[in-house]
Amino acid sequence: MITGKNYIGNKLSAKGSVTHHTINPKLNIETPTPFFEATIDEVNEAVDLAWGVFKEYRKVSGTRRAEFLNAIADEILALDQELIDAYTTESGLPEGRAIGERGRTVFQLRSFADLVAKEDWRENTIDEAIPDRQPLPKEDLRRTLIPLGPVVVFAASNFPLAFSTAGGDTASALAAGCPVIVKAHAMHSGTAELVASAIIKAAEKTGMPNGVFSNLMGRGRTVGTALVEHPKVKAVGFTGSIAGGRALFDLASQREEPIPVFAEMGSINPVVITSKAISNRSAEIAKTYAGSITLGTGQFCTNPGLILTVEGPKTQEFVNDLAEKTVAIEAQCMLHPNIKKGFVENGASVTSQAGVEVVGTIQGELDANYAASLIATVSGADFLANPKTSQEVFGPFSLVVRCKDEAELLEVINNLEGQLTGTIIAEEEEYGNLHDLVDALENRVGRIIFNGVPTGVEVCPAMQHGGPYPASTDSRFGAVGANSIKRWVRPISYQSFPKELLPEALRK
Amino acid sequence: MITGKNYIGNKLSAKGSVTHHTINPKLNIETPTPFFEATIDEVNEAVDLAWGVFKEYRKVSGTRRAEFLNAIADEILALDQELIDAYTTESGLPEGRAIGERGRTVFQLRSFADLVAKEDWRENTIDEAIPDRQPLPKEDLRRTLIPLGPVVVFAASNFPLAFSTAGGDTASALAAGCPVIVKAHAMHSGTAELVASAIIKAAEKTGMPNGVFSNLMGRGRTVGTALVEHPKVKAVGFTGSIAGGRALFDLASQREEPIPVFAEMGSINPVVITSKAISNRSAEIAKTYAGSITLGTGQFCTNPGLILTVEGPKTQEFVNDLAEKTVAIEAQCMLHPNIKKGFVENGASVTSQAGVEVVGTIQGELDANYAASLIATVSGADFLANPKTSQEVFGPFSLVVRCKDEAELLEVINNLEGQLTGTIIAEEEEYGNLHDLVDALENRVGRIIFNGVPTGVEVCPAMQHGGPYPASTDSRFGAVGANSIKRWVRPISYQSFPKELLPEALRK
Repeated sequence: MITGKNYIGNKLSAKGSVTHHTINPKLNIETPTPFFEATIDEVNEAVDLAWGVFKEYRKVSGTRRAEFLNAIADEILALDQELIDAYTTESGLPEGRAIGERGRTVFQLRSFADLVAKEDWRENTIDEAIPDRQPLPKEDLRRTLIPLGPVVVFAASNFPLAFSTAGGDTASALAAGCPVIVKAHAMHSGTAELVASAIIKAAEKTGMPNGVFSNLMGRGRTVGTALVEHPKVKAVGFTGSIAGGRALFDLASQREEPIPVFAEMGSINPVVITSKAISNRSAEIAKTYAGSITLGTGQFCTNPGLILTVEGPKTQEFVNDLAEKTVAIEAQCMLHPNIKKGFVENGASVTSQAGVEVVGTIQGELDANYAASLIATVSGADFLANPKTSQEVFGPFSLVVRCKDEAELLEVINNLEGQLTGTIIAEEEEYGNLHDLVDALENRVGRIIFNGVPTGVEVCPAMQHGGPYPASTDSRFGAVGANSIKRWVRPISYQSFPKELLPEALRK
Repeated sequence: MITGKNYIGNKLSAKGSVTHHTINPKLNIETPTPFFEATIDEVNEAVDLAWGVFKEYRKVSGTRRAEFLNAIADEILALDQELIDAYTTESGLPEGRAIGERGRTVFQLRSFADLVAKEDWRENTIDEAIPDRQPLPKEDLRRTLIPLGPVVVFAASNFPLAFSTAGGDTASALAAGCPVIVKAHAMHSGTAELVASAIIKAAEKTGMPNGVFSNLMGRGRTVGTALVEHPKVKAVGFTGSIAGGRALFDLASQREEPIPVFAEMGSINPVVITSKAISNRSAEIAKTYAGSITLGTGQFCTNPGLILTVEGPKTQEFVNDLAEKTVAIEAQCMLHPNIKKGFVENGASVTSQAGVEVVGTIQGELDANYAASLIATVSGADFLANPKTSQEVFGPFSLVVRCKDEAELLEVINNLEGQLTGTIIAEEEEYGNLHDLVDALENRVGRIIFNGVPTGVEVCPAMQHGGPYPASTDSRFGAVGANSIKRWVRPISYQSFPKELLPEALRK
């Protein structure tokens, strides 16, 4: 049941008087439950509780943390249709997506359970003593990874489950041994509370200390700011806009004790399509990309917002075909009114720049929060001349940049900001000529895809989901897969230690 | 030969008119060569050159980078007595230390050569495709680590070789595939130029691109600020004071594109000595610690500046003995007049705080830059009540904090800022009672030493040299050993890539 209250550890709490409602974007109406924004007292209570139990939780064995994570997965599944309904109501996303994303969330939790049930992930290293080494004896040194402390997770608007309350950031931080305080996304407060209740149930069932998890509601920046500035918070995870992520990064960097902020932010995900590929399979590529651009109403951080090609005989035909196929896909609902507003405004901004032409967009009246997919085009020269053309338009939008030659296309890539992904669509006989292109993309992105689409982020060890700024605030880490646990830990060395005082895995 | 000029890549350059001299601290006189501070033009030239060759250098094979690093080691050794003389003249440190530190520097270079000659360090990961997976096929994903770009290294005053021009930061960054620009320490400019000449010779001999390394001189903050703010610089390494490191961190965080700063800064390195250990072997511990406190004139980041003990029957005797033995060690020269000034001022500040008593210090007139070793003591209550008592006194100083009981001692630890190291001196029969102490130290430090001294940082895979802020700006990384290469790289994934376009190590 959705109460509208915060979880301060295992306790429901609503001390404040400021409330907000979530919105059903399909109907464009508020949902009935008022959600109570956490007060500063409640923020402090949650952080103090997390700090207090950190000492205990960080010593909980990997096996028991795995039980906890698996129990969270079980409890999420047990929420059943109530969760799916809250998700679809608050996000406007379809039931199939809700079920799929729940599957991903559960898979992530179970993957981290598997990871921490064993000790391999800690990079445990033992350098034995060499007492007779000359000129000085070598001491015994043993190194492992230990958790940083309480972690604050900001839930994403575009993944109400997989990158929110019990999403990748929470799962990896809990797996690492860090208590977690989630700042719920204000537009998914009901979904957030349900998932939080699952985490709390799982914590109680598996005997985790009260305070290992809290869930705080809030609409503006007050709760988030108080959390990031709290001296007992030791790291932050965030998925969202560049403005939001940068604001948190700045707060965290200016603290007396700066703390890391892992913000996964904006990306327009350049896709290079060679003119030969267009000549050979224009229709197939247009169809695939129309699907990728509109997938999830274009509300993925890996959405292909920029298509780069060298002008060739079939470019115009391809652009027209892409626009036609994109527009032919039925308009879908966006996550909430602000996302719709941003989509319209940013789309209008990009398409009003010199040289940018709209090739196709859905015409006519749409329901309030539905998005009119939009394909535009611009020359390489106009794109290079004007940074406003590379602004992210979050939603079903892509800008096709038609470069005069390969050199101009490389210049476009070299001038892009950091990106999560880059994609190359090319024919086999061209592979030998693509080294410069791969080189250029390597310098700008965190993942390069060949003859595919950037949407769809596999959860596996070889995945990197992150990239140079502003794709991420720290390109050395990623937000998906086993490696993402490394964000919440630091190395420690034990020198000449008695076995009984070493962490168990180092007692060899 | 020392020319006083900057190296902009392979070229000696002295476009500016601002010069400075280094100081022979033993004689307290300036050395003869004027060193030309790099102009902003020269800074830009060095960074542009580094950025230009990054594209080439990052593709140089590990085997060839290993040749380069080994050649640097060879060329440093070939400098022979000229280098040792410059080192001892500019640092006031004895010849034995110079030779030892040169050995460490050469060892570090050769260790990184060994590391990158193989590919293991890149964490190469291959997740093969599963084309028939349901509901969606799994794409082939391959992950490796690639270099960030040009790195700026600020040389340390207290390690003119091992943490300076060709020290650990430079060696690890060059090993990773990043061009390096060193900002030489103004007080070791001659040593810096000699080592820079060795790097340049090695680069030329092994065919590395011109610009892979530059060495810039400068006294104030102008050169360093221009380097850190330059958009083509992608990471910074620093060893030095909290004020200096934090200033660089702030500059780097406030850039349009923030970049990581790995600053290894202040630490007072708490040493807990149980009263039983004092009862059993007071004289031995006092002797060992008198040596550790005065080693290198106390100018190590791991110097034991804080000794914590629970008051016992022999505490007073131990403190007196420690002071006596410390003061009995002949006064030594400090690195330069500013270090001496800081030692005197900070020592006076700490010893003037309420409840702090000087137990022993070298009496009488000393030559200008020689340090009068100093042992002081304070009660746990007075220490806890006043943050000024925990100020770092860089030099041969230690403050013994006498706690009334175990609880107060733990409170002292819990209230300390982050530290590089913590040490426990205890008797075997006490081990079972030390879990809380180890716990408390784990939360505050990067390395815990048992029945030893914190000075002496072994270069090996299990070493962690770094700690929670302000010991380091990023506790997740360290400045010593193989893992320190991870500071300069980021992960990248290749999805469904043709073999011929993959980095060689991923073509399996």
